[in-house]
Amino acid sequence: MNEVRPNDWMEKIVSLCKRRGFVFQSSEIYGGINGFWDYGPLGAELKRNIKDLWWRSMTQTRDDVAGLEATIIMHPSIWRASGHVDTFSDPMVDCKTCKGRFRADQVDSTPCPKRPSRMVTECEGEKTPPRQFNLMFKTYVGPVESEENAAYLRPETAQAIFAQFKNVLDVSRQKVPFGICQIGKAFRNEINPRNFTFRSREFEQMELEFFIRPDEVVARLEGSVATLAPGMDLSKPQRNWGWEVWHKYWVEQRIRWYEGIGLPRDSFEEYWQKKEELAHYAKATVDILYKFPFGTQELEGIAARGDFDLSQHQKFSGKSMEYFDDEAKAKYVPHVIEPSAGVDRLLLALICHAYAEEEVTDEKGQKEVRTVMRFHPRIAPIKAAVFPLLKNRPELVAKAEEIRDLLRPHMAVFYDETGAIGRRYRRQDEAGTPFGITVDFDTLGENGSALKDTVTLRERDSMKQERLPVGELLNHLLVRIR
Amino acid sequence: MNEVRPNDWMEKIVSLCKRRGFVFQSSEIYGGINGFWDYGPLGAELKRNIKDLWWRSMTQTRDDVAGLEATIIMHPSIWRASGHVDTFSDPMVDCKTCKGRFRADQVDSTPCPKRPSRMVTECEGEKTPPRQFNLMFKTYVGPVESEENAAYLRPETAQAIFAQFKNVLDVSRQKVPFGICQIGKAFRNEINPRNFTFRSREFEQMELEFFIRPDEVVARLEGSVATLAPGMDLSKPQRNWGWEVWHKYWVEQRIRWYEGIGLPRDSFEEYWQKKEELAHYAKATVDILYKFPFGTQELEGIAARGDFDLSQHQKFSGKSMEYFDDEAKAKYVPHVIEPSAGVDRLLLALICHAYAEEEVTDEKGQKEVRTVMRFHPRIAPIKAAVFPLLKNRPELVAKAEEIRDLLRPHMAVFYDETGAIGRRYRRQDEAGTPFGITVDFDTLGENGSALKDTVTLRERDSMKQERLPVGELLNHLLVRIR
Repeated sequence: MNEVRPNDWMEKIVSLCKRRGFVFQSSEIYGGINGFWDYGPLGAELKRNIKDLWWRSMTQTRDDVAGLEATIIMHPSIWRASGHVDTFSDPMVDCKTCKGRFRADQVDSTPCPKRPSRMVTECEGEKTPPRQFNLMFKTYVGPVESEENAAYLRPETAQAIFAQFKNVLDVSRQKVPFGICQIGKAFRNEINPRNFTFRSREFEQMELEFFIRPDEVVARLEGSVATLAPGMDLSKPQRNWGWEVWHKYWVEQRIRWYEGIGLPRDSFEEYWQKKEELAHYAKATVDILYKFPFGTQELEGIAARGDFDLSQHQKFSGKSMEYFDDEAKAKYVPHVIEPSAGVDRLLLALICHAYAEEEVTDEKGQKEVRTVMRFHPRIAPIKAAVFPLLKNRPELVAKAEEIRDLLRPHMAVFYDETGAIGRRYRRQDEAGTPFGITVDFDTLGENGSALKDTVTLRERDSMKQERLPVGELLNHLLVRIR
Repeated sequence: MNEVRPNDWMEKIVSLCKRRGFVFQSSEIYGGINGFWDYGPLGAELKRNIKDLWWRSMTQTRDDVAGLEATIIMHPSIWRASGHVDTFSDPMVDCKTCKGRFRADQVDSTPCPKRPSRMVTECEGEKTPPRQFNLMFKTYVGPVESEENAAYLRPETAQAIFAQFKNVLDVSRQKVPFGICQIGKAFRNEINPRNFTFRSREFEQMELEFFIRPDEVVARLEGSVATLAPGMDLSKPQRNWGWEVWHKYWVEQRIRWYEGIGLPRDSFEEYWQKKEELAHYAKATVDILYKFPFGTQELEGIAARGDFDLSQHQKFSGKSMEYFDDEAKAKYVPHVIEPSAGVDRLLLALICHAYAEEEVTDEKGQKEVRTVMRFHPRIAPIKAAVFPLLKNRPELVAKAEEIRDLLRPHMAVFYDETGAIGRRYRRQDEAGTPFGITVDFDTLGENGSALKDTVTLRERDSMKQERLPVGELLNHLLVRIR
């Protein structure tokens, strides 16, 4: 039934997110604040799992990426160098009558605040000419609110990586090609936050800047530069790769990573930006789009940015961003491939992908609709739930607690003793917990049961139950959640 | 030698932090920005390990704490309810001559910007009367910079927990006593950031709000309320505990946690605030102080805050913060115990504690000073380093890579093939890597060596080397890093 997605699919997902504690509106008791969302207990765990897997895929499972964690508030010159102070803006008009401010390109679809039955363009109020409104949040560092103390909340994490390129290079013993990755919050004062958590004003990014040799250096060293060819083996980086192959390599790496956390290739679209759509410094950009219920939208952008960013910082800071390549006996500003993903968007995609409703038959033979979150065990907020069959039998409770404590050092476990066992399963289905473990009288070996020291293991998606010795439980689960 | 700490101890630590990539100045290429620090590759891993262990100690190893991840920018009413808008400020005076702004309580120790040889009090410039300067960073949400759109960067993570108390309660199936924990960035526009990363303007907190029954409810249910007594068993919460015992329980829990990551009890001081020092709403506050080289300073505060915070939000939001306790058949606003720790301060304490210099004798019999970071293996940024004895012998390199790939899914591993083996060990000593693994000709079984398929395992602190079969390596390390 996962395929049938009625019109209210997104509403159902939003409702589940609130009901089960994945996502809350920020500051809800004060009426909320537009464009800001909090993660409840399940959402916070899901988000941690996503970030942890990304970070480990970058820093732990490969030798050629180093991590960084920079501040959100940085020296304002960084945003002059990057172009954000000058160009990271939307055109806005003010209405002199109602004092409202509107996006100039949306006045014919934005209702007039005074009379919402007509659009802003239809009102007689005099409008100012469009003016650029910068999307960076501004604040002041130090006690004086003067322009020289103005600073910005970073609108992306990438620039900190460029600004610290030389420091990381000096300490990490890396050689080009290598990357620096970072996870962290970023802020954009969006005029129209929308689509639940998809476009919000405070969000989190996972960005990698992967530095490569300019093609001419590769050509000099290797005799020629490999360009993209059909059927090319992209699994392992090669010395003769030019930027084009590196770019494609990272597109493939990222898609494989998404597959590894349960988003199949056919849930995406790869959109290769056309020449005329590219930013002036970009050589190529691929958007990885996910098919959300509200439309097919960007999860990640993978851009080949040449040496634009490092060169800009070299120019604005006066500090050399050149790298001395001992093998090539050459100095150059490295080029960069940038896979840049949004954590909140990915979390939302994973929730949309996991959400399913299916008709099942309960213990009493009644048909009912089961809501189940089919998270990949790797990202599931809770890996296993442990249930004593009855809560008023101390031997069952003690045994269930023993099993909970056995698993707990290795995974997130939820212990639940309240309600009928079927209802407890359903609650965990909605939380996306892949495994349910029930301790019953057989486990205790009552009446000489041959099933002593075994438990029922119930698998979330198939709802199949099998009997497993307690001694095999930990390894059985560890294999499935990794 | 860890005990001998000369005057330049802190300078040495700061120097190592930069040299090895634990900490960089934010925006260094632009001259830096006062009070902001970035974490380089080793610092970022260390910080992740600290946060991960704290989070797991709260949410994974106990049933009674749920996690939350709220936004940094929240509805401004939250800071009116909490008291931060009115009282989170320092008194400042302006000099009408030099236009400088100074902390009123520090004018006699702050140099005059015009003539730094004298203090601000000694200059003839006319000063304004002291005015309160709020330490929250302010910004505007939405396109109009008006007071109604003003918002603040949170100065602490705690308030989000209070604001979302009811939502978390509704979804998490918790009953009082239970807690909500959060890790995240907070910002304070400190006038004098100082002591390296200790007092910075952007920092990260790990906070738990643990909600308990008011003492009168405990008394009604249990007949009496347990208060603190010498030799009391605090290892497992009891139903009759009053706030005083819960408070002491959390002090003990937190100290045990610090011990578990390698900070022994005698590296702290517990400072119990005196009655006259307590905030008006606090019943008791304990500061856990660490003996930094620059002085004994606060790592964590553990406060018994009564029902102050929830009551304030109830008053300001008009939403009930009352909890219905089915067992007590009573409605009440829960009281709270708040262990609030600083991630950056703890990271700095761990670095200060780990840093050691010792005189050792090298392979050639020369005495030299070894700098070693004695991190507990649980928090060490890199757990193991793998070295082929020589890099120009493909069999050694292949075997070392095989061992790296064997360990890598389970821990952070560093592979290094460059330089003399002694120098490679020293580099890992400075990074705090607890284990070094060397692949040599014996590992390959050359000349019929009986040591085939064994490696040298070198322990960082003792520098002892032992020979271990490759097949036993993973388990041997896993036991030690957990």
